[in-house]
Amino acid sequence: MENIAEEVLMGNRYALAKAITAIENERENAMEIMQKLYPHTGHAYVLGITGPPGAGKSTLTDKLAKEYRRQGKTVGIIAIDPSSPFSGGAILGDRIRMNDLTLDDGVFMRSMGTRGSLGGLSHKTADAVKVMDAFGMDVIFVETVGVGQSEVDIVKAADTTMVVLIPGMGDDIQAIKAGILEIGDIFTINKADHDGADKLATELNMMLDLDGVMKEWRPPIMKTIANQNIGIAEVVETFGKHHNHIDGNGQLTVRRTERTKNEMLDLLDSRIGEHIRRNVVENGKIDKLVEEIKARRTDPYTEAAKIVSEMLK
Amino acid sequence: MENIAEEVLMGNRYALAKAITAIENERENAMEIMQKLYPHTGHAYVLGITGPPGAGKSTLTDKLAKEYRRQGKTVGIIAIDPSSPFSGGAILGDRIRMNDLTLDDGVFMRSMGTRGSLGGLSHKTADAVKVMDAFGMDVIFVETVGVGQSEVDIVKAADTTMVVLIPGMGDDIQAIKAGILEIGDIFTINKADHDGADKLATELNMMLDLDGVMKEWRPPIMKTIANQNIGIAEVVETFGKHHNHIDGNGQLTVRRTERTKNEMLDLLDSRIGEHIRRNVVENGKIDKLVEEIKARRTDPYTEAAKIVSEMLK
Repeated sequence: MENIAEEVLMGNRYALAKAITAIENERENAMEIMQKLYPHTGHAYVLGITGPPGAGKSTLTDKLAKEYRRQGKTVGIIAIDPSSPFSGGAILGDRIRMNDLTLDDGVFMRSMGTRGSLGGLSHKTADAVKVMDAFGMDVIFVETVGVGQSEVDIVKAADTTMVVLIPGMGDDIQAIKAGILEIGDIFTINKADHDGADKLATELNMMLDLDGVMKEWRPPIMKTIANQNIGIAEVVETFGKHHNHIDGNGQLTVRRTERTKNEMLDLLDSRIGEHIRRNVVENGKIDKLVEEIKARRTDPYTEAAKIVSEMLK
Repeated sequence: MENIAEEVLMGNRYALAKAITAIENERENAMEIMQKLYPHTGHAYVLGITGPPGAGKSTLTDKLAKEYRRQGKTVGIIAIDPSSPFSGGAILGDRIRMNDLTLDDGVFMRSMGTRGSLGGLSHKTADAVKVMDAFGMDVIFVETVGVGQSEVDIVKAADTTMVVLIPGMGDDIQAIKAGILEIGDIFTINKADHDGADKLATELNMMLDLDGVMKEWRPPIMKTIANQNIGIAEVVETFGKHHNHIDGNGQLTVRRTERTKNEMLDLLDSRIGEHIRRNVVENGKIDKLVEEIKARRTDPYTEAAKIVSEMLK
């Protein structure tokens, strides 16, 4: 394919897949593709879906996607694959998504993983969102597993973030819930027919009341049973309400400005990381230093300071 | 305190706490402390404990620490707090650890979180391990919650890594298990009296057999009931076996060399990150660029490339 970016802009799904693969694998043409697509971004609304493993996020996302399709919107889904940081490939991701959504031309679904690159996932996810945006998707879901730091970095790509929880999650859930209060614009208790759903809602409400004093938007707590399609339309309606809210009070602009800033910093990190790999790692310089450090003839702090002052103007 | 590093080397617990606080809060004296302590490191054996939330890792770690104490070894524990990436402080960490271990002078326990710094946790954890090592701890536990990329980065600080699982963990566990196969030297099924422990062991065994062809060390699967002290001595014995194994075949040296190398790269990242903050963020340069980018008059890829070529020699 001669010009991937142009083909993406013309609505070629195969080009869309190729562009994301180029990003994911850090191919040389990725930067050129992104430079060409960037002017055509900024139209899609980005929804972040996060929550602990087992909460049924992928089923829920699929149902939400279908509801948007019913409303005539095109949908992109980027699923951050939990296994990929380790094994370099999707294990569950694509398999469980082989449903009727994959036959719908208005939907494009893609799993992504880190494939061993250092902390590049949030930056790659942000780029994949932009490719789908330039392609013309109206709504883009970014779905992650877990609620760790990398997940938080990833949901920073979203305009509205929904945290999915399920009843009866065990000991550590208090700590996790405390952690996610700050990132959730909407909380959804999935599998709401299971025991403990009301208890979880009560706990969440208490924590949000405590946290939410003086906040303009009090995150609502939704209940769904995704595999029975219960509560889905209501969640989509709530996404719309949150969109309108942050659009109306200027928060959407603030969030997108902050996001652009973070993406710039991520890009700088990643470009400088490449420079370090070329000038310190690949030429074997670091291996010599490591031998000296291991022999305790010097220490990593002194040597890192030296390299940085040699490297920077 | 005039000289924190010297006090640490003389066995002053208060200095040990101050040194780790300096690292955690990125105080100016942190680098000097680390430079002074570094020559005195390399004696402790570092154990990584990871696994999903709710697996009972903290109870298990406490029991293992007690077993080491019974054998006359001094023990450091660094607990990476799950809530801290978000809220900036330990929520559970210190509270649930207020047990008899805290009264034992041969044990030093510390919770750590990211406190908002960008990806600095693995680097700070590695430094805290070194401080405890220089202080004279024989065994140092690094305990994380979750099995995401940040946790994997953190357990890279360990000589031997144990993955803790519990029976009946739900849908996503297959994906997680696949992910952790590569980092676990030892697998422990905690709460082994719960339903499904044998099933989990069988599944794990199958996956390890599939994965472990031609590997010198086949990760054993241990069973514990930590809160009843069952299986604890056996796990400690297995840690010893793994230590002997990797010591005998040279893997320990390889791992520690690799670790030193990764720590050097982390340090470089963090030092260059500081430089970026000073020269691009704090002087407002990035805010001007973001306005241009948001107006689509330029794109982040072009601007990042420009900054990097201006910044580097």
